[in-house]
Amino acid sequence: MSDGRQIFYYDSLPIQRTSVDLRPSEPRPLPGELRIDALTGEAITVASHRQARAFLPAKEFCPLCPTITEFGTEIPDSEFEVVVFENRSPSFSAPSDALSPDVAQASGRCEVVVFSDQHEGSLGTLSEDRIRTVLAAWIDRTREISQLPYVEQIFIFENRGEEVGVTLNHPHGQIYSYPFVTARTEKMLAAAQAHFALHKEPLLTTIIAREIADKIRIIAANDHWVAYVPYAARYPFEIHVAPRVFAPDLAQISDQVADAFPAIAKEVLTRLDGVFGMQMAYIASWHQAPIRIGRDVLGLHWQITSVRRAPGKLKYLSGSESAMGAFIMDLKPEQSAQQLRDVKL
Amino acid sequence: MSDGRQIFYYDSLPIQRTSVDLRPSEPRPLPGELRIDALTGEAITVASHRQARAFLPAKEFCPLCPTITEFGTEIPDSEFEVVVFENRSPSFSAPSDALSPDVAQASGRCEVVVFSDQHEGSLGTLSEDRIRTVLAAWIDRTREISQLPYVEQIFIFENRGEEVGVTLNHPHGQIYSYPFVTARTEKMLAAAQAHFALHKEPLLTTIIAREIADKIRIIAANDHWVAYVPYAARYPFEIHVAPRVFAPDLAQISDQVADAFPAIAKEVLTRLDGVFGMQMAYIASWHQAPIRIGRDVLGLHWQITSVRRAPGKLKYLSGSESAMGAFIMDLKPEQSAQQLRDVKL
Repeated sequence: MSDGRQIFYYDSLPIQRTSVDLRPSEPRPLPGELRIDALTGEAITVASHRQARAFLPAKEFCPLCPTITEFGTEIPDSEFEVVVFENRSPSFSAPSDALSPDVAQASGRCEVVVFSDQHEGSLGTLSEDRIRTVLAAWIDRTREISQLPYVEQIFIFENRGEEVGVTLNHPHGQIYSYPFVTARTEKMLAAAQAHFALHKEPLLTTIIAREIADKIRIIAANDHWVAYVPYAARYPFEIHVAPRVFAPDLAQISDQVADAFPAIAKEVLTRLDGVFGMQMAYIASWHQAPIRIGRDVLGLHWQITSVRRAPGKLKYLSGSESAMGAFIMDLKPEQSAQQLRDVKL
Repeated sequence: MSDGRQIFYYDSLPIQRTSVDLRPSEPRPLPGELRIDALTGEAITVASHRQARAFLPAKEFCPLCPTITEFGTEIPDSEFEVVVFENRSPSFSAPSDALSPDVAQASGRCEVVVFSDQHEGSLGTLSEDRIRTVLAAWIDRTREISQLPYVEQIFIFENRGEEVGVTLNHPHGQIYSYPFVTARTEKMLAAAQAHFALHKEPLLTTIIAREIADKIRIIAANDHWVAYVPYAARYPFEIHVAPRVFAPDLAQISDQVADAFPAIAKEVLTRLDGVFGMQMAYIASWHQAPIRIGRDVLGLHWQITSVRRAPGKLKYLSGSESAMGAFIMDLKPEQSAQQLRDVKL
């Protein structure tokens, strides 16, 4: 890209991509600052350059659309399948010598994964072939970013819907690569390690076996994946999709497992939109083991959470959830699983 | 109350309250269910009876207004100052023999604290005298609820604004009394214990001394309280208000400390609304030490967080915050502290 950021094309056919980013180069922001919240020991990232990022631009100014007019977008080609590029307003970026040595830098990497050159849609509206290409991109990026010495954890996610703060409507996801193990993953790691010490089996393997035995919260399954509402869901609609065979991250799943993902992903997202016959706002998150620790105990899974509890009602994280981390659920997980299963496909 | 719930009046003058709740009695919901999220070890509360709770009723049907017509509200009196009563749709309630013994009950207690008999306003719009009465109610309820054998932690909070999911606009707060130590408090406890072991001083005492020395994030202070934007704030506007002398909870502060609270509370909330000249949505949370543990290390403080980052913009908890617990801040804490200080009172 004209400002030096990297861009990667993922195509289902071998295509030579030669388009050039003709936009004037502009300076890239320096990494932000990491601060430790002494009360909890957690790292907070301060990236004040992000205040100026694009906010719900009109379609004709969408930076994720292909370049077809003199308005140059982030992607110089006039058509594409799946494209990954470094975020222009990153929360984390490569360490810089330009920063004072007494600042704890928010080192890392932030990438945008564009799912389509069409402006409308989201992961579940793509064809299964395209979902497979997106998955190939996620796998490849996980493998590549794992080589960076200043990255500890790779988080792949998609936010969908303005209700969860999406600032660009074009179908896309993101990859946040952190210089630390996140608070949630640290907690999951502790639980997984304790379980492994006791049961000699990854926690997620035990959980999947329990969900299959209980049956009542399962909403979809195939030879390689199981989708269920977790026993202790936190959100009105929450779905976990896990591979039947343990894997620490996407780079470690087999081709057969990867090939079986698009069908269940599309089914699950279609069921979610079918519950109220409307596009559901959601956050879809890949939980992966950190790059260097916990890889034998922490199992890959995909978590989809929606704050939509009824057509006109959202669940808000209010005092108990936000300040205390204590979640209150109005909907029984077995009830939301039933609603998801009842959707006619 | 007609259905057996308790109600308490807090008045600045001795008044005999004799009004009777004339509404027909209705059955009270049984306690919900506690489920452990195996992936994290955290307790999730499933309280499905809460689906039917009141949702933004029109003013003439406000259940927190005084009873002045044949429409009986939660408060039978025609005028009052501060009233506390048990929540009609509680997330936690007293343990019940009616539940199967193999259900982990969501034991505890949920109370509503009504700040005024006027339908409009919030804590910061009350007179200082009234804030003192609200504080007296919080102190008294903390003392009383601490006696319940099935309660481990008392959480007092106020949600303000429909942006944070407020379902009743009448000025009020809530008291959640949990049968466990919450996830956030457990984390704070671990940090506080580690700090105490090393420095022989409560963590919050060290933090307050640092904030006073740094000065740049202080936004208000008096002889007994200090208000500051924390060094590693998580929200565009976040303010901590802490007593200068360590106390584990509200029941342990002296009368002088209590008397000095209304002025700084009103100043802080007025500054918050002044930043954009609009009512700011916020969650105001009292962090208190649990009832039985950590009382020598975990210090009482009041945390106000707002998701408002600009007049037309909210901060959403998206993938990084919601799924990974990794907060990204666009606004430097020193910058928001400056904005708060610059407000003309």
